[in-house]
Amino acid sequence: MSEERWEKLTYWPLIIASVLFIVAYSWQVISVPTGMAETVTRFVMFATWAFFAVDYVVRLTIARERRRWFFRHLFDLAVVLIPAMRPLRLLKALTVIAALQRTAGAALRSRIAIYGAGAALTLIWMAALAVLEAERPAPDSNIHTFSDAFWWAFVTITTVGYGDFYPVTSWGRTVAVLLMTGGIAVVSIVTATVSSWVLEKAVGDDDDQEPATRGQVRQVARQITDVAARLGEAPPERRDGPSLGS
Amino acid sequence: MSEERWEKLTYWPLIIASVLFIVAYSWQVISVPTGMAETVTRFVMFATWAFFAVDYVVRLTIARERRRWFFRHLFDLAVVLIPAMRPLRLLKALTVIAALQRTAGAALRSRIAIYGAGAALTLIWMAALAVLEAERPAPDSNIHTFSDAFWWAFVTITTVGYGDFYPVTSWGRTVAVLLMTGGIAVVSIVTATVSSWVLEKAVGDDDDQEPATRGQVRQVARQITDVAARLGEAPPERRDGPSLGS
Amino acid sequence: MSEERWEKLTYWPLIIASVLFIVAYSWQVISVPTGMAETVTRFVMFATWAFFAVDYVVRLTIARERRRWFFRHLFDLAVVLIPAMRPLRLLKALTVIAALQRTAGAALRSRIAIYGAGAALTLIWMAALAVLEAERPAPDSNIHTFSDAFWWAFVTITTVGYGDFYPVTSWGRTVAVLLMTGGIAVVSIVTATVSSWVLEKAVGDDDDQEPATRGQVRQVARQITDVAARLGEAPPERRDGPSLGS
Amino acid sequence: MSEERWEKLTYWPLIIASVLFIVAYSWQVISVPTGMAETVTRFVMFATWAFFAVDYVVRLTIARERRRWFFRHLFDLAVVLIPAMRPLRLLKALTVIAALQRTAGAALRSRIAIYGAGAALTLIWMAALAVLEAERPAPDSNIHTFSDAFWWAFVTITTVGYGDFYPVTSWGRTVAVLLMTGGIAVVSIVTATVSSWVLEKAVGDDDDQEPATRGQVRQVARQITDVAARLGEAPPERRDGPSLGS
Repeated sequence: MSEERWEKLTYWPLIIASVLFIVAYSWQVISVPTGMAETVTRFVMFATWAFFAVDYVVRLTIARERRRWFFRHLFDLAVVLIPAMRPLRLLKALTVIAALQRTAGAALRSRIAIYGAGAALTLIWMAALAVLEAERPAPDSNIHTFSDAFWWAFVTITTVGYGDFYPVTSWGRTVAVLLMTGGIAVVSIVTATVSSWVLEKAVGDDDDQEPATRGQVRQVARQITDVAARLGEAPPERRDGPSLGS
Repeated sequence: MSEERWEKLTYWPLIIASVLFIVAYSWQVISVPTGMAETVTRFVMFATWAFFAVDYVVRLTIARERRRWFFRHLFDLAVVLIPAMRPLRLLKALTVIAALQRTAGAALRSRIAIYGAGAALTLIWMAALAVLEAERPAPDSNIHTFSDAFWWAFVTITTVGYGDFYPVTSWGRTVAVLLMTGGIAVVSIVTATVSSWVLEKAVGDDDDQEPATRGQVRQVARQITDVAARLGEAPPERRDGPSLGS
Repeated sequence: MSEERWEKLTYWPLIIASVLFIVAYSWQVISVPTGMAETVTRFVMFATWAFFAVDYVVRLTIARERRRWFFRHLFDLAVVLIPAMRPLRLLKALTVIAALQRTAGAALRSRIAIYGAGAALTLIWMAALAVLEAERPAPDSNIHTFSDAFWWAFVTITTVGYGDFYPVTSWGRTVAVLLMTGGIAVVSIVTATVSSWVLEKAVGDDDDQEPATRGQVRQVARQITDVAARLGEAPPERRDGPSLGS
Repeated sequence: MSEERWEKLTYWPLIIASVLFIVAYSWQVISVPTGMAETVTRFVMFATWAFFAVDYVVRLTIARERRRWFFRHLFDLAVVLIPAMRPLRLLKALTVIAALQRTAGAALRSRIAIYGAGAALTLIWMAALAVLEAERPAPDSNIHTFSDAFWWAFVTITTVGYGDFYPVTSWGRTVAVLLMTGGIAVVSIVTATVSSWVLEKAVGDDDDQEPATRGQVRQVARQITDVAARLGEAPPERRDGPSLGS
């Protein structure tokens, strides 16, 4: 089976597994279920883990250049092997959904805003879960409820950082560092998009005042070629400049 | 009656109602009036609420495509129905004023700076009122005076976040999240505008070094068309490129 | 006497008065001098105040359109009349020095970086002095030494905001708000300049990949005009487009 | 010997000395070695210091314009003479590695991201070491372990600033100020690069919609010159515009 076919086949199962995983993981961390509920969440989390592991092995097996594939997917391996990294499984789903959206023909800015806001919310949600799991058992920690963890994640990703809640364990701080590194970039995208939307609402835009595009200049170049064609054959000298395609 | 006529008719009443609402709401939250004053502020807030509700119902009734209008104005419905969201009514007035300014011919940057600064101040003011209303009754809260709430909102919107004041109630934190999301974007607009103003003051600008505009390239394309016109009829081939209007 | 002559005459005196003022104000706030030293600092501060007041009155008197000048220089009036605003006198000197630099032919980016860093340091220094003056007498304040105030101003202007020091008095918070509003813009300029410098150092730049400039397109337009001139007189139609000067 | 030859000769020794220095300095600060280990780290730090000092003296001696070289390398002198500034020696190595990367033909954005991330991590690591060295002996300090110092540096460079840890000594605060000034710029580069990468992943890019480049316009200008060449000799008037090379 080719890589493309496998990816097409596992497209919806991967998204469904990611959603199931986030639901089970959220349930497990937020309400610490016991008895039957605990069995169910544990089973769902094991099943989604197994699915990710099988997907990894299959893709490694059918890869054309196995060695190169292995080194390009070390992140996928870590997500499968290291239990503490399981919240990152969701990032995989995010990449897949991005591919989906690329095919859709929605307007550019609203797509960025929706996708960015979705990615930011997912990051905040997963970081809140992971931090809560890491901090709750620590004796001198101050994040003990999901509501506080969610608030902490939001205060962190916007770089406000009140300091009313902060992680004290090694893993909690690692989650915070990942949230800052990835999240601040995503938030800056959303902020920039919102800014440009507000600007357009308040100001209106004059297309003639936008920076010229490469496509425009290429069209001008084609026009000149037309003019030159009418004047006779192409001149022999001065065609050694950089191509307009660059 | 058409939608446009209704909007023109309610233009000034809506702005006046918004101003009355902000005055009454500020008075109610800041000085917690009793007796006659309480009756007046309560009446003004009820009257402005009724006005917004009537405006909503009328606009829904006269809308050409009612179903589409309903889904596009869910925010307006929430503002009318949920008491805690009433401070957001002011955002409506901001949108209306923006429309007003678009017709005026003022210089671009000063308009952005004034509108952005106005929007930021309104957001800070309303967030301070809403947070104070939410936090004052909470037993373990630290925001108890309007002066502290106003200072907190300013420290939050600039992402400084000292942590001397922070919300502890669910609604207070929701207000903070809204302030961060909307406000940081507005502040980044104002900062960018001030930066570009300072840069221009300190450096001066050379128009020849600015990025070329689409209007300029279109003008060049027109010039070439003129040249081509003088050489004879338009050539038949190579007119299939992307339009310069794109 | 014309406005220009007065401005030329008072150019160096104003800068010297600003420097004297900052030295005397710093001395007064930092070491709280007594006896002879107190008399000297008080005299210098009075003398520079008198100089600014005289400069204001003279410029108002010789202004061509007195009413317009008055409304355009309300800030200067406030600085002269309100004692608490005296640290802002320095901003005037900054504007004057900016004018000086504009005439110099130094490279663009280093000029922005030096001027921005100078403005940021002046803002930090004056904010530290003003906050210390406001906070020291307050009973529940935590900023009591100039070293702490200077550190606080730096932590604030970079929006880090640890919260180890923060103002508690109304005037101290007003200074903080001014520092945030003005300072964050200046810091963002310096950061952007440093970023572009680091980028150029690490990457090198390919001029061919920079955005096209308006001057370039104007030159292309001139070339086409040359070609058209050789083909005969200007064609009568299609000259109604937007001017390239826009 | 020429400057270029000396730089080529000391290229790898300088990088190795920098790496040895960072290892020895990290060891000394983190685990406070005693006995044999202390002797080794002290010797390595002295040896690398001696190497930097000799390199400085040789480069000053063989410089073509010694006076100019001296004033352009005051930073190098400070790093050699002032013990507290030794962590900054590493910045030198960063500049050298940057020069190395410029010759490599890797893709632009990944190079910026890798170099920026490397520079940010080096800054965080060295700032953590320097702050720990400064704060540990202070009686009222709160940064006592390397883990806390590293966490503090990360929270500072992202401008989150919880305030759970902050420097209290003069030298610790100076390190913090350097970290903020240099680091925030580097972090903003990495954030901008990650943002543009995420944007491209989520949106895809249409080369025709990118801003036109100077190289493109130069190519168009060459095309017009070709057309003009076929029409006869260059026209005498209107060649006085700004050169396209500007």
